[in-house]
Amino acid sequence: MTAPSYPLPFGVFSVGAGRPRVGVAVGDHVLDLAAALDDPVFDNTTLNPFLARGPREWLAARAALQALLNSTDSEIVARRERHRIPIADVRMHLPIDVADFVDFFSSLEHASNAGRILRPGEEPLKPNWRHLPVGYHGRAGTVVVSGTPIRRPWGQSKAPDSGAVHYTPSSKLDIEVELGFIVGAGSPLGATVGVDEFKQHVFGAVLLLDWSARDIQAWEYVPLGPFLGKSFATTISPWVIPLDALTGAEVTPVPQDPPPQPHLTGTAPFSYDIGLELRLNGHLISAPGFASMYWTPAQQLAHMTSNGASLRTGDLYGTGTISSWDKAGYGSFMELTWNGQQPIRLPGGDERGYLEDGDVVTVSATALAPDGGRVDFGQVSGHILPARSTDTDPGFAPSLPAEQESA
Amino acid sequence: MTAPSYPLPFGVFSVGAGRPRVGVAVGDHVLDLAAALDDPVFDNTTLNPFLARGPREWLAARAALQALLNSTDSEIVARRERHRIPIADVRMHLPIDVADFVDFFSSLEHASNAGRILRPGEEPLKPNWRHLPVGYHGRAGTVVVSGTPIRRPWGQSKAPDSGAVHYTPSSKLDIEVELGFIVGAGSPLGATVGVDEFKQHVFGAVLLLDWSARDIQAWEYVPLGPFLGKSFATTISPWVIPLDALTGAEVTPVPQDPPPQPHLTGTAPFSYDIGLELRLNGHLISAPGFASMYWTPAQQLAHMTSNGASLRTGDLYGTGTISSWDKAGYGSFMELTWNGQQPIRLPGGDERGYLEDGDVVTVSATALAPDGGRVDFGQVSGHILPARSTDTDPGFAPSLPAEQESA
Repeated sequence: MTAPSYPLPFGVFSVGAGRPRVGVAVGDHVLDLAAALDDPVFDNTTLNPFLARGPREWLAARAALQALLNSTDSEIVARRERHRIPIADVRMHLPIDVADFVDFFSSLEHASNAGRILRPGEEPLKPNWRHLPVGYHGRAGTVVVSGTPIRRPWGQSKAPDSGAVHYTPSSKLDIEVELGFIVGAGSPLGATVGVDEFKQHVFGAVLLLDWSARDIQAWEYVPLGPFLGKSFATTISPWVIPLDALTGAEVTPVPQDPPPQPHLTGTAPFSYDIGLELRLNGHLISAPGFASMYWTPAQQLAHMTSNGASLRTGDLYGTGTISSWDKAGYGSFMELTWNGQQPIRLPGGDERGYLEDGDVVTVSATALAPDGGRVDFGQVSGHILPARSTDTDPGFAPSLPAEQESA
Repeated sequence: MTAPSYPLPFGVFSVGAGRPRVGVAVGDHVLDLAAALDDPVFDNTTLNPFLARGPREWLAARAALQALLNSTDSEIVARRERHRIPIADVRMHLPIDVADFVDFFSSLEHASNAGRILRPGEEPLKPNWRHLPVGYHGRAGTVVVSGTPIRRPWGQSKAPDSGAVHYTPSSKLDIEVELGFIVGAGSPLGATVGVDEFKQHVFGAVLLLDWSARDIQAWEYVPLGPFLGKSFATTISPWVIPLDALTGAEVTPVPQDPPPQPHLTGTAPFSYDIGLELRLNGHLISAPGFASMYWTPAQQLAHMTSNGASLRTGDLYGTGTISSWDKAGYGSFMELTWNGQQPIRLPGGDERGYLEDGDVVTVSATALAPDGGRVDFGQVSGHILPARSTDTDPGFAPSLPAEQESA
């Protein structure tokens, strides 16, 4: 019988008023790594210094941890018990200092649905979609950790009927269910990173909620893409699942037609079979599967650097909304309610087109572990606070109600 | 007679193998600030720690420097002479650790020209353009300091005739002449920053070259905006001109029709009259004027935070290409050569549609100083290196010439 292999998600935690530091989750405890491994790289408020050490050191740390956790030596057992804290007693923090944040658009199902909803009657996919993983840069400074309340954003949008332009709280607040991949080891400016070099650069994965104000986005996005419709917040889960814990979830990616160009082709292409669940106020709404994504995380990384752009420790990239063909696997409310036109009914009778104030969105995920068990991603969640109000919030700048604004 | 007022551009310099640190330019010398002002905040490799102190401290440091430079006290004169280094002896570095990088599109002339060139026969401006400063996030990690060589990027593009999709070195390498504004004092998530709060947050301005591969951009940008066509490099000048040195250049902005919404309106609107010069291989090509920009830097800042997005010390935003109505003031080769169709002729007979390998692009600028002199922005420049080659550069990943790629 082999010793159990722990998934060992890495995160940043604090206890009481203590300074945040790096830990791994083991069952319902957090192991304090700086103490348990006697390595000051973990006595930091983010994972970045550890990630910057590169893949050899990532694997060495995991091997040391597996040995520590499987040891029966009484002194080692005492050490690991001395440095573990019940997970209920810790507060989790943003695990990384985000360098650049990129968001892709790599589900064929989601891109097709979005095209049908936003440009009815036209070919849903743009001509470039099957040739490269379409993506854009997002705002790194507004990436927050799970549990951070999400304030409904104000923004400019155009009324569909009158054509009047208003600055109001968004009335089409949505989420996109995604995974995020975190770059640990950077690359120099001018170099490219090939598909096969994915594991040399990417440390691990998180769950990612891409908050999206569809009305703001629809008005602003031509011709330079999403900006304020996305930049108010992006939420990631606190626990980073190392790629090394996901080898049991690697699967052959879906066929690509046309075949990708050589610089987007790996010698042993793989994606991940990760099952996600989206809940609204505790009710299961859909269950997207990552295995159906058209472009893989390794292709996304290769594309992102195919012009010589450098990578930095802490770069985060979202995979894009994960949507399956069937409504039971759609990864956004825009798709689930067809832009609010077909509201979903919640147990108890409530209906939702888009998100309402007070709503709580939660995404969880698991994947097959190498030992046949499941790797648990934990969860990412956020609840919606009402928009700031000029009546109750004197520090808020917008000074006129919508009716008085220019048309 | 009042004592002279120095513009005091801030930058980060090093001498020989010494560690970079903060200095100000005074004539043809750099004053070493940590030593001259005896303040360790300047003994840092970026301006960020100083910028984070906020506007009151920015002004206090400038006042202390003016006093130091105007003093006739022999001990003070000796101190300032002891800590100054000839500018010819220093190496300049990227002045800030860039947090988020945003790029706007705020010249009516440039946006109109781009529309005419890229979508002939259509209305050049999109419907949103006069209602908000259109912008997008760029790649913070590839912002480099003036003088950094620019490697011609590879990228995917579509041949206009055959429709074949190729991964090749860009053949439409361009620059956009811009100013960049640097946020010193941040703002919390969920808050907005009004137009009138501009000087409470923005420390100063730099020259900015927005390198753009037009062929890559044209193929990739639908529907999520520019990505790899821009992300390979953005160059900024090494000297940051404090807003406090630009009060003499403040001018009434151009009229806006329709009037901007209240959240984009300030009580005393102003822009800057800054004259720029674009040179190719030393030859003056055009002279854009910043005063004609439609959206002002203060409106751009207010728009960027109008959804509650936070600001961080080190945020950098580009104004967008600065183009005047006349060809003599166009700020990109796309406009100067009308997408390469009307090449410009250089003294000596060379012609240029877009940039060629070996070309050197330089932008300089000056503005009226409060005392009637000129504030000199110095210059920003970059020279074009040939694209990496699979023949000569075995570490370069792309493995097939264009002919063999999928169509």
